[in-house]
Amino acid sequence: MITGKQISELLTRVRMKRPLVHHITNYVTVNDCANITIAAGAAPVMADAPEEVCEMVTCAGALVLNIGTLNKSQIESMLLAGGMANDRQIPVILDPVGAGATCFRTQSAQRLLDELKITILKGNAGEIGTLAGAEAHVKGVDSHGVTGDLEKIAQKYAKRAGMTVVVSGATDIVTDGRRIVLVDNGHPMMGGISGTGCMAASVTGAFVSVTDDPVIASVAALAAFGIAGEKTVGYARGPGSFRTALFDEMAALKPEDLLSGARIRVR
Amino acid sequence: MITGKQISELLTRVRMKRPLVHHITNYVTVNDCANITIAAGAAPVMADAPEEVCEMVTCAGALVLNIGTLNKSQIESMLLAGGMANDRQIPVILDPVGAGATCFRTQSAQRLLDELKITILKGNAGEIGTLAGAEAHVKGVDSHGVTGDLEKIAQKYAKRAGMTVVVSGATDIVTDGRRIVLVDNGHPMMGGISGTGCMAASVTGAFVSVTDDPVIASVAALAAFGIAGEKTVGYARGPGSFRTALFDEMAALKPEDLLSGARIRVR
Amino acid sequence: MITGKQISELLTRVRMKRPLVHHITNYVTVNDCANITIAAGAAPVMADAPEEVCEMVTCAGALVLNIGTLNKSQIESMLLAGGMANDRQIPVILDPVGAGATCFRTQSAQRLLDELKITILKGNAGEIGTLAGAEAHVKGVDSHGVTGDLEKIAQKYAKRAGMTVVVSGATDIVTDGRRIVLVDNGHPMMGGISGTGCMAASVTGAFVSVTDDPVIASVAALAAFGIAGEKTVGYARGPGSFRTALFDEMAALKPEDLLSGARIRVR
Repeated sequence: MITGKQISELLTRVRMKRPLVHHITNYVTVNDCANITIAAGAAPVMADAPEEVCEMVTCAGALVLNIGTLNKSQIESMLLAGGMANDRQIPVILDPVGAGATCFRTQSAQRLLDELKITILKGNAGEIGTLAGAEAHVKGVDSHGVTGDLEKIAQKYAKRAGMTVVVSGATDIVTDGRRIVLVDNGHPMMGGISGTGCMAASVTGAFVSVTDDPVIASVAALAAFGIAGEKTVGYARGPGSFRTALFDEMAALKPEDLLSGARIRVR
Repeated sequence: MITGKQISELLTRVRMKRPLVHHITNYVTVNDCANITIAAGAAPVMADAPEEVCEMVTCAGALVLNIGTLNKSQIESMLLAGGMANDRQIPVILDPVGAGATCFRTQSAQRLLDELKITILKGNAGEIGTLAGAEAHVKGVDSHGVTGDLEKIAQKYAKRAGMTVVVSGATDIVTDGRRIVLVDNGHPMMGGISGTGCMAASVTGAFVSVTDDPVIASVAALAAFGIAGEKTVGYARGPGSFRTALFDEMAALKPEDLLSGARIRVR
Repeated sequence: MITGKQISELLTRVRMKRPLVHHITNYVTVNDCANITIAAGAAPVMADAPEEVCEMVTCAGALVLNIGTLNKSQIESMLLAGGMANDRQIPVILDPVGAGATCFRTQSAQRLLDELKITILKGNAGEIGTLAGAEAHVKGVDSHGVTGDLEKIAQKYAKRAGMTVVVSGATDIVTDGRRIVLVDNGHPMMGGISGTGCMAASVTGAFVSVTDDPVIASVAALAAFGIAGEKTVGYARGPGSFRTALFDEMAALKPEDLLSGARIRVR
């Protein structure tokens, strides 16, 4: 069982502890990731030089790896930081942006999954489907669908790989192989701007810093971020003002909002 | 002849086909480029690793190359992706940011022009003047003027190089050497924020993905982007709110707006 | 003595001369730096390739070095550009983001201080404390305090190193070892978004381009940026709209606003 009380308490804890979330991420949405991390109540740091990632990550509550604009040396830094995070039992979130679109992305994501213990793998249907070995379609960084039952694909994959799998979409799927939780929060405009997927991973990093349960952390993060999006309804006029409002609402989000607004279905 | 109907139909086609626009671009305005591409109705992808650019570009409707924060390895990736785009007849837009300001920028832009078939070269007066061999003045990434008749310089250069040349400014010039079209749309505030030039190239990438005529694509893109800017008049209070509004208006732009609002002069 | 008249005249001069501010900076807040530079009245250029930094900086009024996402090759470019700036007597601002958080950051900042003549060193308490040899605490890129009297630490360090030291905070400290000036302008929300520290350095770059006195330039920049923040009170609803408003207010800032709004204490 996952209750609204549990997830709303996590928000309180993020705000109180202000955990450091170390990102090694793409240069497209990195500023949004920094700002949403702050708005969620945590402290972002972006650092990707091989000389410092191991030292930086030891102070962090979580490590977020995002391959949105990957290159060879960044992957090496991810492996270094991820290895240190694993040693210190610091949770690692992987957002395999564009896996399935090019071999380089698929193979790099696979290498990170093989060489690191990933706590939470978060992607869209196409990305997760690709890595899970399903028939999946990715164009650029957008999912163009998966053949098969997405919940089952994710569940089996999570079980096999021993990690929590999050499939983002209109309804988000969160599963550790045993539990499956669906999160219905969100706003269609979230697909109308760049970076909402990346931001969701950042918020997940904030939440997983304050609990041992990656499923609850992911559910709480997706519900919180989704509710922030919902609260912009009525005054966001388009993608520009929606983005501005999203930061405002994330920062203004109260534990009560999570308690009353989370739309969670436990399978 | 270029009619309002032609260009408004292009917008409909972009929204329907949602082409992928592959960018290899600078890290300053890359997020704006991603978001304006989405607002225009297309799908952005940013990828610059040599391991993947050739594979990524094959799925794209257009390739946008922007040297705003160029470095040696990025230029190599541009040559790789551009070569593949040429093989597949995927249009290539080059934005030679800062050509004329440093030898490295001028020479890199020239190398891209020499080794690739560029479909559309889009820059400010100083950048285009520099590459066309005119007496031009560039400081940082801003044009400080060109000696001579800009329309003629652009036209001659387009003819000689066999490409479409776009000179951005209060009045934009679009020419393939034969036709010259002037676009009067836009808003002075566009010069008051970083990245409008880069964004115009992204929108051009979206439009050239759905037509074989780079002149019409460029005219449509500049008119559409300019009209979106114009629509912010009356409520944008400064550069911050102007930028927010620009994304809102670009996303809200209707084919009718292009039909009624485009201010195009065919020479 | 530093008068409101002196600093308000600097703003007029920035707007009139529109100096080029060359940045070698991080990829997280680079877009904010570009836009705030424009809003202040100057022209930003971001360029970090070793092939061009020396040529680019010769046209600049100031060089801003920011190690927010440093890597080895970027530090080399900073040394190249900084050396040329020193030769040409172009002022150099260093923002040692995260010095104290990792050895790589501390040592890189120290190397820049050792090998270049830095005009203005601007950081938070933890960063400046670290470099000054005090007992300081930095986590990620946030200061967690310094043991000792910050004003005295900064003053002694400025004197010893022969540079102007700026310690950002609720009250900013500006000192060249002889003079100490405190700036009380600002808004708590400035700590609620990413990049305000970086932006303050950019604005300082704009102001130091038009005066020989780095103390007055720093005071003017911090007051101007702080007043812009204050002016958003009453209508910024959260960090997203605060950021938007900050650009609007910076661009709308008049010399009179500086004259009447600057809260400066000369020690």
